[in-house]
Amino acid sequence: MQSFELTRGFINTLKDAIKQEERDVVLKMIDDLRAADIAEVSAELESDEAQYLYSLLDRETSAEAITEMEEDDREELLKELPSEFIAREFINNMDSDDAADVLSELSDELQVEILQKIPDIEQAGDIADLLAHDEDTAGGLMATELIRVNINWNLTTCLREMRKQAENVDEIYYVYAVDDNNIFKGTVTLKNLLLASGHTKIKSLYEPDIITVLVDTPAPEVANIMEKYNLVAIPVIDNIGRLKGRITIDDIVDVIRDEAEKDYQLMSGISEDIDSSDNVWTLTRARIPWLIVALFGGILGSLVISQFTGELSLFPQVAIFIPMITAMGGNVGIQSSAIIVQGLANNSLGLESTSKKLMKELGVAVLNGLALSSMIFFYNYFYTHSFALTISVSVALFTVIVFASIFGTIVPLFLNRIKIDPALATGPFITTVDDIIGVLIYLSIGRYLFTVMH
Amino acid sequence: MQSFELTRGFINTLKDAIKQEERDVVLKMIDDLRAADIAEVSAELESDEAQYLYSLLDRETSAEAITEMEEDDREELLKELPSEFIAREFINNMDSDDAADVLSELSDELQVEILQKIPDIEQAGDIADLLAHDEDTAGGLMATELIRVNINWNLTTCLREMRKQAENVDEIYYVYAVDDNNIFKGTVTLKNLLLASGHTKIKSLYEPDIITVLVDTPAPEVANIMEKYNLVAIPVIDNIGRLKGRITIDDIVDVIRDEAEKDYQLMSGISEDIDSSDNVWTLTRARIPWLIVALFGGILGSLVISQFTGELSLFPQVAIFIPMITAMGGNVGIQSSAIIVQGLANNSLGLESTSKKLMKELGVAVLNGLALSSMIFFYNYFYTHSFALTISVSVALFTVIVFASIFGTIVPLFLNRIKIDPALATGPFITTVDDIIGVLIYLSIGRYLFTVMH
Repeated sequence: MQSFELTRGFINTLKDAIKQEERDVVLKMIDDLRAADIAEVSAELESDEAQYLYSLLDRETSAEAITEMEEDDREELLKELPSEFIAREFINNMDSDDAADVLSELSDELQVEILQKIPDIEQAGDIADLLAHDEDTAGGLMATELIRVNINWNLTTCLREMRKQAENVDEIYYVYAVDDNNIFKGTVTLKNLLLASGHTKIKSLYEPDIITVLVDTPAPEVANIMEKYNLVAIPVIDNIGRLKGRITIDDIVDVIRDEAEKDYQLMSGISEDIDSSDNVWTLTRARIPWLIVALFGGILGSLVISQFTGELSLFPQVAIFIPMITAMGGNVGIQSSAIIVQGLANNSLGLESTSKKLMKELGVAVLNGLALSSMIFFYNYFYTHSFALTISVSVALFTVIVFASIFGTIVPLFLNRIKIDPALATGPFITTVDDIIGVLIYLSIGRYLFTVMH
Repeated sequence: MQSFELTRGFINTLKDAIKQEERDVVLKMIDDLRAADIAEVSAELESDEAQYLYSLLDRETSAEAITEMEEDDREELLKELPSEFIAREFINNMDSDDAADVLSELSDELQVEILQKIPDIEQAGDIADLLAHDEDTAGGLMATELIRVNINWNLTTCLREMRKQAENVDEIYYVYAVDDNNIFKGTVTLKNLLLASGHTKIKSLYEPDIITVLVDTPAPEVANIMEKYNLVAIPVIDNIGRLKGRITIDDIVDVIRDEAEKDYQLMSGISEDIDSSDNVWTLTRARIPWLIVALFGGILGSLVISQFTGELSLFPQVAIFIPMITAMGGNVGIQSSAIIVQGLANNSLGLESTSKKLMKELGVAVLNGLALSSMIFFYNYFYTHSFALTISVSVALFTVIVFASIFGTIVPLFLNRIKIDPALATGPFITTVDDIIGVLIYLSIGRYLFTVMH
């Protein structure tokens, strides 16, 4: 079976069928779809059309589809529905972690209202507990649904208990072994269960050296650990070692994707999590802040250049290389910062000290600087008639490349040290500063050389 | 158990112990480590030290650690070892997909040499088959190790066969059901196995509507499918539906990470997959190509400006806003391209047509353009003494923002249409073109207004 491909035609036909309330046609169209497909489809529908669609689904599927929806679309849909309905039809049938995620997007008031109306009291309690955790920590990612066995049981008891518990757990992956005080002892793999025979005790079956995370371990760290050790699920324990939940790889894939997107957006100078389907206002609001920063950078740059208007009116040809100098500074600075930011993100900076990194960066900068300023030297030597300009551009280009490399390396390391997201350094901030400093370096060198040589 | 944290002290102690061939000390130090930790540790060792370390490990662990190593480090280590040793100690004990990955990095000659020396002929055959697939397709990602049951078996036979097959499979996740011709029919979840009782036939137990991919499905598409449907493993079939292998989520996490890093590197103008621990030459080689592009862009820009030196010597204050104009064009262009590139990467562009996207982008550009050019208008009105300059900068800034938005939206869509990686559009290419066009727009408007108004 191939995965579902959404088309404009499908949506139009579906919208027509919904408009005419042709229940059977709609049901037939969505019969083959999975929850994630329904979520995709409903994102293209108007709010009332989506409600009609969800009303036709069984509770399991609609709860899962709601979970899979984009946050914005979900918010729009939920705000039209009574809290009683949300609690009973959606939240009650979700995994605890998904339920907590969905609820955390709503107002505190509405959260309480919905929590009180969840029919399954135990589920409501689990969700309330999860909501207490910061959503960027292991506690905020974990689900409480898991298969838990006591190390003192034998395989037969264990299998019977597992059958009972498995009703509530979608995917099993591992079975978690705890002692009488719910202290986590290790995992029993399904392979172990398959290969073991007879009345083996869990005590002799579980694997003890299992990597765990604490409830307050930051989400990106959990992602790095699961990725490094190729884990599909990781147990979450509290400070005294009690088993609190487990995090599965699908939630971690989201964390990895989100982290990468966040870095990407910061680098592109976008300040909110947006995509191209957002409306004009949202897109504008997300894009203008860094442009304003660049505008102020431009004003500062103009103040720097205005100190040199005397020289520029005498030697206007100096102005013609301003864009090259600023572009090169920006490009080199972003390269340097991006390497550091990526190293910090995937924990691959290794054990190299900061001073060794800087020395290496200096080496790269000198090589690149020499190569590029030689190129522009030969170009200017043959095509430009001012030797002072030829020398100024090459010396300035070299200096700007070295400066931008070092600055681009130091800034993200420094931001990281003071606990600010280092990816900030890759965006318009670094190019703006590089522009100003670059122009200042270029025009100062130019002023000096032109004074000396003319 | 917490995950291992590599420190400089640990490495130094280990290096000393290896130098003095203190076998017991080394063994004690690495006793608690997992394969991924060993890989991390060995990356910090010299080649001969790493060899010594691997010689102390059991075959399973050393094969896994080799798999987990960074490509560069692995290459360095393997080139020192005889092919017989690589075949017997490493490749023979790896999962088929990992073995194929490792072999694919070696020369064709060495591949054949090693393949012929693998003791397990069946394993050698599987690996040779996998090597035939493009590594960026499902066939290149899949492993042949999986648990396969016949739909005509009953649960008892099935469990007996599973125990036999499970010896070769690290993680089970799902059991795959096929018919007598190895045509894939569906999966049996472990939950189904646990909950079923007695002599149920597999025929009545398997779930038929399972999403599959073909051996030649591109890797990023496999990643999108597994991510969308939250799958931990996906079966890979050939054109006539025969089960060829399965892809597990850990390999997909790598695909997602790689895709994100590739986009990130293209945006930062880096042309090879590097990290900060690479040497100065590698780093320089990866960074200089786009800088050369920017240099040529700068030269083109200089040719544009040199058409205006007459005006610049009369009105040198025009030059002071050149960096602002180029910076704004670059920033806006990258924002526009990044939104498109990210939408293409995670398949979230939705069903909006290109013309609708462009209209929206135009809306955003007009709003941002009006806001920013009003700001600079007021600044210049109060602080600059030339009204012609005030008007020129504002009109040019608005025009450049609109141009860069449209250009930044069209280019990645166009690149994608002609099957070139759209992320190319986010790098120095777009800023370079924006710089040139921006300067041309600014100076042309400036020339016109200064002529009219003075």
